Amino acid sequence: MSRRLLDRVTRATRAAEEAGLAGILVTPSADLVYLAGYDPPPLERPTCLVLRPGTEPVLLVPELEGPRARGSPLGGSLEVRTWPDGDDPYRAMARLLPEHGTVGASDRMWSLHLLFLQREAPELGFVPASGVLGPLRAVKDEGELDILGRAARATDEAFRRIARDRIEGLREEEVGERLAGLLREQGLDGVNFTIVASGPNGASPHHEPGGRALRQGDAVVLDLGGRVGGYCSDLSRTVCVDHPPRGFREVYDLVQEAQEAAFGAVAPGVPAEEVDRAARDVIGAGGHGDRFIHRTGHGIGLEEHEGPYIVEGNREPLRPGMCFSIEPGIYVEGAFGVRIEDIVAVTDTGAIRLNHATRDLELVT
Amino acid sequence: MSRRLLDRVTRATRAAEEAGLAGILVTPSADLVYLAGYDPPPLERPTCLVLRPGTEPVLLVPELEGPRARGSPLGGSLEVRTWPDGDDPYRAMARLLPEHGTVGASDRMWSLHLLFLQREAPELGFVPASGVLGPLRAVKDEGELDILGRAARATDEAFRRIARDRIEGLREEEVGERLAGLLREQGLDGVNFTIVASGPNGASPHHEPGGRALRQGDAVVLDLGGRVGGYCSDLSRTVCVDHPPRGFREVYDLVQEAQEAAFGAVAPGVPAEEVDRAARDVIGAGGHGDRFIHRTGHGIGLEEHEGPYIVEGNREPLRPGMCFSIEPGIYVEGAFGVRIEDIVAVTDTGAIRLNHATRDLELVT
Repeated sequence: MSRRLLDRVTRATRAAEEAGLAGILVTPSADLVYLAGYDPPPLERPTCLVLRPGTEPVLLVPELEGPRARGSPLGGSLEVRTWPDGDDPYRAMARLLPEHGTVGASDRMWSLHLLFLQREAPELGFVPASGVLGPLRAVKDEGELDILGRAARATDEAFRRIARDRIEGLREEEVGERLAGLLREQGLDGVNFTIVASGPNGASPHHEPGGRALRQGDAVVLDLGGRVGGYCSDLSRTVCVDHPPRGFREVYDLVQEAQEAAFGAVAPGVPAEEVDRAARDVIGAGGHGDRFIHRTGHGIGLEEHEGPYIVEGNREPLRPGMCFSIEPGIYVEGAFGVRIEDIVAVTDTGAIRLNHATRDLELVT
Repeated sequence: MSRRLLDRVTRATRAAEEAGLAGILVTPSADLVYLAGYDPPPLERPTCLVLRPGTEPVLLVPELEGPRARGSPLGGSLEVRTWPDGDDPYRAMARLLPEHGTVGASDRMWSLHLLFLQREAPELGFVPASGVLGPLRAVKDEGELDILGRAARATDEAFRRIARDRIEGLREEEVGERLAGLLREQGLDGVNFTIVASGPNGASPHHEPGGRALRQGDAVVLDLGGRVGGYCSDLSRTVCVDHPPRGFREVYDLVQEAQEAAFGAVAPGVPAEEVDRAARDVIGAGGHGDRFIHRTGHGIGLEEHEGPYIVEGNREPLRPGMCFSIEPGIYVEGAFGVRIEDIVAVTDTGAIRLNHATRDLELVT
């Protein structure tokens, strides 16, 4: 484990140097898990791994978390420096950085910490660390692909079970709880979210499950995700209770076709936005372009959403090992929504799906 | 509900004006829950409530979250403006701000968002919004005090039950899971953390429960917290399995005395650091000053840790309605730790404890 982490630290430091950065500040987040296997909660007391080309890495932590940090996977392989309550941690951080130059900061670093550090080190420039860490994290190694595959299969199975269950008459929030239970039963360590958006609520892509009861003729968007060993799953399917509502079939078929077209567009070297384009062209040609109100997908790994983003304007070429969602949707206000989402992985020649739940329309009872 | 929220928005905007700020940017976090009752997950797509003196507030959200935002408690009372995937949300945010001046940013705003906004609005200065929002959030109203009291009592009861349980021989992580179950049983909506630090692990204040089995003669630090209706609880007690280890009694009594002294020091107008000082004086006089390696406490509310911080250097005067932890501790490396923590609320004349679990030493089996 620690060898794999040290290799990542080395590659990140080299990438920072190549990008002309004087260093990278890694605060509690998926970045810190990725590089150091360390996962303390982000708090008002800053914790920060400082990477600098030509210097040994230092993990700066609050004194009371010193034992925990030293006991973490890289705790014995890098310098753990502590700062006591009452001291100024930003001064300590600034001392680990050069006076001039540009430094990357973890995307999720709290602005509180960044602002105090900017005040302490006024000659330093800051940029999001994802410019350097994003491309490293986006390409998954075999171990990561394996665990993402396990997370995806467990999520497929949770969906299959809810689709065989009797859910008519249940409230959205009850279906959400049942889905969460199924995800845990399938071996996921944690549940990240369960969206259950029935009937007209389906037109809100990030709808929060509420008190509406599912009834015959409802379309229901189910979007569920959890994690295994820190890695996330994310699956969307749209089912109908008993029978589809009027006008639904045509829309469903279009979304399914768009999802297929986007999947077919995935290959190494293809710019990310072309995958978005492939889905958008199908939905646009079908006359529903203005109802596809979000990007086609997002990378997934230690975070639910990470690079590469499958969105217009992202010309980043896809590379083998990248994993992301393909989730076109059509949202018909006042009536229903449809979204079909799989996680896919780029291979040397094209792509594979990590999800295998059927994409054909399922009628539930 | 929405009236109470609008009142908070008005007070926050006025406080920003009084502090000379041109505006406040409130991103998904306890700040947004406090002001707008809106709690979407913080994501790479920015969501931001923009408050500006002399202007109506605007809630800027990703297009796909428009329906959810409009359905939130203030969704009908303020302008919800959406930005579509593929557009630049930072430009939209900058358009809602003046060109010059200083703006407060939510402490937990991701640095990713802050850095892109700083690039888009180079003439603006930024400071942590907690300078303005902290004092508002720190003083709880009656409804908030009531719910914090309920959260505290449920947590007390979870502790009482684990202390009556048979836990000798269980691994720390098993005790942690049992505590989590007890917190849920007592009606908490969610569990924030359960620290179980046995024997020498007790010397690590933020120890993560692991595989060590509890045995006779162990001191065990239990630190547990959850939430009710968004508001947090946080309770620490130290128990011993069968009998205390050597040297423990004296240390325990000292921590208990320090906790009492700090509680006795709480009154309106007293600077926060004096409460810390009261605890530290007792432990210092007992010869363990260098083993009390953290501040005495932290405010609590919609966040586990928020202002006021009970730490040396914080001269902020306490005000009626403030709620915070008093949690002195002594950490003896290689042997054990002791921490005793209650949440207290400042009253017009002094303070009351919200926790009522006994602070006398409990021996467990």
